[in-house]
Amino acid sequence: MAVNFAGWAAAHQSRFEEVLRGLLPQPEVSPQRLHQAMRYAVLEGGKRVRPLLAFAAGEWVGADVERVNIAAAAVELIHAYSLVHDDMPCMDDDVLRRGKPTCHVQYDEATALLVGDSLQTLAFQLLSERQLSDDGLQQLEMIKLLAAASGSRGMAGGQAIDLESVGRALSLPELENMHIHKTGALIRAAILLGAQCGTVSAAQLARLDHFGKCVGLAFQVVDDVLDFAADTATLGKTAGKDADNDKPTYVTLLGVQAARSMAHDLHAEAVETLAEFGDKALRLRELADFIVLRKF
Amino acid sequence: MAVNFAGWAAAHQSRFEEVLRGLLPQPEVSPQRLHQAMRYAVLEGGKRVRPLLAFAAGEWVGADVERVNIAAAAVELIHAYSLVHDDMPCMDDDVLRRGKPTCHVQYDEATALLVGDSLQTLAFQLLSERQLSDDGLQQLEMIKLLAAASGSRGMAGGQAIDLESVGRALSLPELENMHIHKTGALIRAAILLGAQCGTVSAAQLARLDHFGKCVGLAFQVVDDVLDFAADTATLGKTAGKDADNDKPTYVTLLGVQAARSMAHDLHAEAVETLAEFGDKALRLRELADFIVLRKF
Repeated sequence: MAVNFAGWAAAHQSRFEEVLRGLLPQPEVSPQRLHQAMRYAVLEGGKRVRPLLAFAAGEWVGADVERVNIAAAAVELIHAYSLVHDDMPCMDDDVLRRGKPTCHVQYDEATALLVGDSLQTLAFQLLSERQLSDDGLQQLEMIKLLAAASGSRGMAGGQAIDLESVGRALSLPELENMHIHKTGALIRAAILLGAQCGTVSAAQLARLDHFGKCVGLAFQVVDDVLDFAADTATLGKTAGKDADNDKPTYVTLLGVQAARSMAHDLHAEAVETLAEFGDKALRLRELADFIVLRKF
Repeated sequence: MAVNFAGWAAAHQSRFEEVLRGLLPQPEVSPQRLHQAMRYAVLEGGKRVRPLLAFAAGEWVGADVERVNIAAAAVELIHAYSLVHDDMPCMDDDVLRRGKPTCHVQYDEATALLVGDSLQTLAFQLLSERQLSDDGLQQLEMIKLLAAASGSRGMAGGQAIDLESVGRALSLPELENMHIHKTGALIRAAILLGAQCGTVSAAQLARLDHFGKCVGLAFQVVDDVLDFAADTATLGKTAGKDADNDKPTYVTLLGVQAARSMAHDLHAEAVETLAEFGDKALRLRELADFIVLRKF
């Protein structure tokens, strides 16, 4: 492979931005303010970690990139909706996201509520109206997978556990349970959906799922470390906020050194899981590096 | 048909309540508070107009009732999620719904936000994990139909138009456009999904869709009349609230007499649409009566 990871990621990120621009409702279509706010909340934002995982998994099985685009967009829209709602005053009350005013600050709370609602709907609309598989039943399985990962026993459930945990002393297994749902479920879904756009065996999916579990957890541990260490300018969001709110994090529970070493262990386990896949799993391995080794 | 409409509706309402109890996450499953709040927001609530429309359409085409149960539940979960979010302080700020404290009052705002989010996800999960059609591609069409009816160019879009219209003088076509999206889209989806659980031609679907459009609009006109006329005790929600908020309604725009006569005209058009369907459309016709003639 001639292109290095940075080049590969940058090419996908820039290409995927255009994909999202085309899939989101156009800003001049009624209701304009809602559609403009949906685009504000999704476009020019983030590193697109979940889509990159979907693209890496899709390339590994030789999936049609047009199909992976749709799966990746659906996952990213679910992620974006959760950020918009999570930032609202009744949740985390954040005013900055990726260095820009959050959606309810830029627009208003009612619009932000509808933006999140509509982004979620759009995710399921895309998965049902575009062809992702030659087999309709397989495509239904993919929709079910994303729904299960996003709902009350997935991502939203993790946010509910998070709400209940504020001010409480969580054990390490409880904290892990929260993050497996809150962040992990959607990361795993991104990888599995990317792979399911091509041909993949149940055994391969199980291995990918374990990789996703390790990477998802590592992602959160690293987030906690970064949140603790970084200042607002570097991160583009209010730093140290979780600790201020008395929210349990890996850093408050383990200390920053042990949290870093936990992230490294999870990274090693993720890479080990892919060992038998050989060179074709290069991008997945590089993504694990990217997620765990960023700005330590 | 031996059973009269009231008996037919009561039997379906009571049976459907059990269906919903079984489909919603059980209250003892983690995260318990979220699951309990989801059940609070959905169970023992409302007349289940949309499910009844789905059942009537399903019976008309001889669809398997187990399949219509799932389609009806998905539509009702979308409706319930929209009510939970609509009642929140940043939207309509309602404290009573169906005579009970609204979800954010009974629980808290953050939980209500997650309840709405999770109910929406559950709707799409049900439509993808249960069998609704012998044909996977047809089932994907059904998911797409519900998503389109619920999203930014359907129900949520209607709510956005509603937000933008507060304090503005809307024309009658603008008001109609708002309601066709806000209430009408989901009512039409309920009827079409019920019918699509069985075998139905494109021409029949088009006719059902026109019936749904008339009934959906009539439903909103009647709501405006009731909201204007009723007192809080009868309605179980704060009466006259729309007028207080300077929201345009059919009553403020047309006057109460013209609004009533508009509802009657829409009812006549709905019934006329079904004329050639004969006796098999009895329940649909009775539902049109029920929706338009309630408590005038």
